[in-house]
Amino acid sequence: MKAVLQDSKIPKKWYNILPDLPEPLAPPLDPETDEPIEPEKLLRIFAAELVKQEMTMERYIDIPKKVRELYAKIGRPTPLFRAMNLEKALKTPARIYFKYEGATITGSHKINTALAQAYYAKKQGIERLVTETGAGQWGTALSLAGALMGINVRVYMARASFYQKPYRKTIMRLYGAEIYPSPSDRTEIGRKFLSEDPNHPGGLGIAISEAIEDVLRDEKARYALGSVLNHVLMHQTVIGLEAKEQMKEFEDPDVIIGCVGGGSNFAGLAYPFVKDRLDGKADYEFIAVEPRAAPSMTRGVYTYDYGDSGGLTPKMRMHTLGHTYYVPPIHAGGLRYHGLAPTLSILINHGIVRPVAYHQTEVFEAARLFARTEGIVPAPESAHAVKAAIDRALKAKEEGREEVILFNLSGHGLLDLKGYEDYLDDKLEDYEPEEFPALKWEV
Amino acid sequence: MKAVLQDSKIPKKWYNILPDLPEPLAPPLDPETDEPIEPEKLLRIFAAELVKQEMTMERYIDIPKKVRELYAKIGRPTPLFRAMNLEKALKTPARIYFKYEGATITGSHKINTALAQAYYAKKQGIERLVTETGAGQWGTALSLAGALMGINVRVYMARASFYQKPYRKTIMRLYGAEIYPSPSDRTEIGRKFLSEDPNHPGGLGIAISEAIEDVLRDEKARYALGSVLNHVLMHQTVIGLEAKEQMKEFEDPDVIIGCVGGGSNFAGLAYPFVKDRLDGKADYEFIAVEPRAAPSMTRGVYTYDYGDSGGLTPKMRMHTLGHTYYVPPIHAGGLRYHGLAPTLSILINHGIVRPVAYHQTEVFEAARLFARTEGIVPAPESAHAVKAAIDRALKAKEEGREEVILFNLSGHGLLDLKGYEDYLDDKLEDYEPEEFPALKWEV
Repeated sequence: MKAVLQDSKIPKKWYNILPDLPEPLAPPLDPETDEPIEPEKLLRIFAAELVKQEMTMERYIDIPKKVRELYAKIGRPTPLFRAMNLEKALKTPARIYFKYEGATITGSHKINTALAQAYYAKKQGIERLVTETGAGQWGTALSLAGALMGINVRVYMARASFYQKPYRKTIMRLYGAEIYPSPSDRTEIGRKFLSEDPNHPGGLGIAISEAIEDVLRDEKARYALGSVLNHVLMHQTVIGLEAKEQMKEFEDPDVIIGCVGGGSNFAGLAYPFVKDRLDGKADYEFIAVEPRAAPSMTRGVYTYDYGDSGGLTPKMRMHTLGHTYYVPPIHAGGLRYHGLAPTLSILINHGIVRPVAYHQTEVFEAARLFARTEGIVPAPESAHAVKAAIDRALKAKEEGREEVILFNLSGHGLLDLKGYEDYLDDKLEDYEPEEFPALKWEV
Repeated sequence: MKAVLQDSKIPKKWYNILPDLPEPLAPPLDPETDEPIEPEKLLRIFAAELVKQEMTMERYIDIPKKVRELYAKIGRPTPLFRAMNLEKALKTPARIYFKYEGATITGSHKINTALAQAYYAKKQGIERLVTETGAGQWGTALSLAGALMGINVRVYMARASFYQKPYRKTIMRLYGAEIYPSPSDRTEIGRKFLSEDPNHPGGLGIAISEAIEDVLRDEKARYALGSVLNHVLMHQTVIGLEAKEQMKEFEDPDVIIGCVGGGSNFAGLAYPFVKDRLDGKADYEFIAVEPRAAPSMTRGVYTYDYGDSGGLTPKMRMHTLGHTYYVPPIHAGGLRYHGLAPTLSILINHGIVRPVAYHQTEVFEAARLFARTEGIVPAPESAHAVKAAIDRALKAKEEGREEVILFNLSGHGLLDLKGYEDYLDDKLEDYEPEEFPALKWEV
């Protein structure tokens, strides 16, 4: 069973959670002074409209017409399915629905904010967007957004992924983007890491530092971030706004689930439902799923920290493992991040969102069952949400009660099959850090 | 611009072109006697319902309810887009539309017949389907169909692809199928080829022979073919039947284009429109596109030939390059076939379908333009249709006339990026055989 919407049902506005949060967002701090950052400094990094959206207390923001047209082009509204074969395999009384963001032409939800960011940058006359990418989903999305909007894109890609995932690079090149392995010799921070280890595998935090350093050298460039920040999460709310419409064809969910790296696909699905809970109109449960190798939600501390490894970004108050924490090389590259969206951090602190963490082996096991029953191969990141949905459905069975589960299948795994191969060949390793030294001396 | 249909608009019947062909189909011949083959022999190879569908003169065949439900699950109806960005880039007065079969969850049109074949086999109590795969799209589709219908699947995969495309194999394994590199040591014909060359790269023709030999040894197994035969092409007509509905939202096409290996995606889109032309209701043009390395339509002869390299299949009257012709290793693995669907052969002979052939370099060049403007990375096979559509749109521009072009984008290229990488790195080779020795002594 599936609910599809016509193009005309693409939402006309994004939902901004800031005015509805149970406490105000703490201001970002200037990395040099530890004082609340001056807007001019943010304007040097981000397109002006995005800085405005980062802070605005307007609850709904118009989606520009051009962005809505491109949403239709890249596959929005995405379908929402009921996973009846999975239910049957689990013999559960629970009913499991999923929103399928892998149906977009770049294969994940990342294109939802990429198009918006490229649109505002182009409108402002910015000539180049610079960004980082880990697994490659964000880099792919921004590269396509750049091609469609007519703006240059430069991507710093974690060195390990750059060489292990040549085909991600191929797609970005096809879309016309420039790609560099990070750490690179193009930036001071990159050269610093390379001098410590010429084969440094890189990581999201380092690649962000390089992208920002690159932008700060070039007046006509701005930086684009794929998660964490409020404007990014807000652009993703098209997912949840569509899903609310689609669930009307079925039934109201009891529990809403998404995987979390920085938090954007989770927020995209959940925040429009969170609003109803904050308004006292519904008692939805929310489950945010992370890897045990990068447990910022379940084991991090809530404090001010940098968004990157090099300490160039503003500091944000969030759950963090410490900005120099090296996340072990799990296959879900998009979840290998030390921090967490500040808005999501607040919702966790207030008990509105409950975090859980899994090892990758159990996650791939769940994803295999999903592929065999529902046909879709989940991205390793999204597979974390699959695992939580299955666990929840099995709990409902144990307790003999019906339950309506909705989760976000944020992307397909067709470009990330190495993890599945390792899983099938029994070669996966699980990682569970005993402690987080980066936290002790830095935060 | 995009036309989507609700699930309820999935066609209820397939269209069978046999009663409308300008001449009757020649009977398949027994490979041992060269006499028209006895139905019992076909029943030993194929599921009974498929043998019936291969010969029936009924014009419309009911699609079983279960198959229609699964069509919805795997992404039918697929969307139909207008490629406005491509039109703009070409500065053409032509309007270009494409049906996007890559939107199915296995990424190509192959699932349309895979589900039907698995359904009829299951219903008949067959325990295992055996097949071959070249590029992997067909093997992937049948593996999923087997998982969804609860029937075992065994795939012989051309050895070169087996090792060069490990991730295709990973997906099929995830879906629960058994995969063997072909030639394998599991069959007589496989051992024969291996004894000639232990590193034999294999090919579609050899893999078909192995699959059939495997089936003939196992009473409870049947063979499944992904193209060429009438029942396969008929299952694919859901594509064209949906497209006819969707084009009503826009305008009537002038020219309809598809790529051709065996002919199934071309027929799937075109045959419902061919019917209107045969009925004298429309004057659509049809263009079938093949690689110059495997030019069965433009340079083959029309005669009886085997469908496989080993000479185990019934002989069919078709355009062929000779069943032992080794097709050079172009990236469009799904087009590396010596023969052609008998029904399509007849339409070409009668001047209803016009064939054209391209080199792979010009095809990838066209695909890059398509990716940059429309966002979708075409499968190397489907990219042949993109190239023909672009050429046609440029011709319309040259001649200063409007034209409405519709083509089939039969699959995405996310699992076939090596060809794009070689193209971007200027490493592609084009192949144009001077002659076809296999034709001279065999046909």
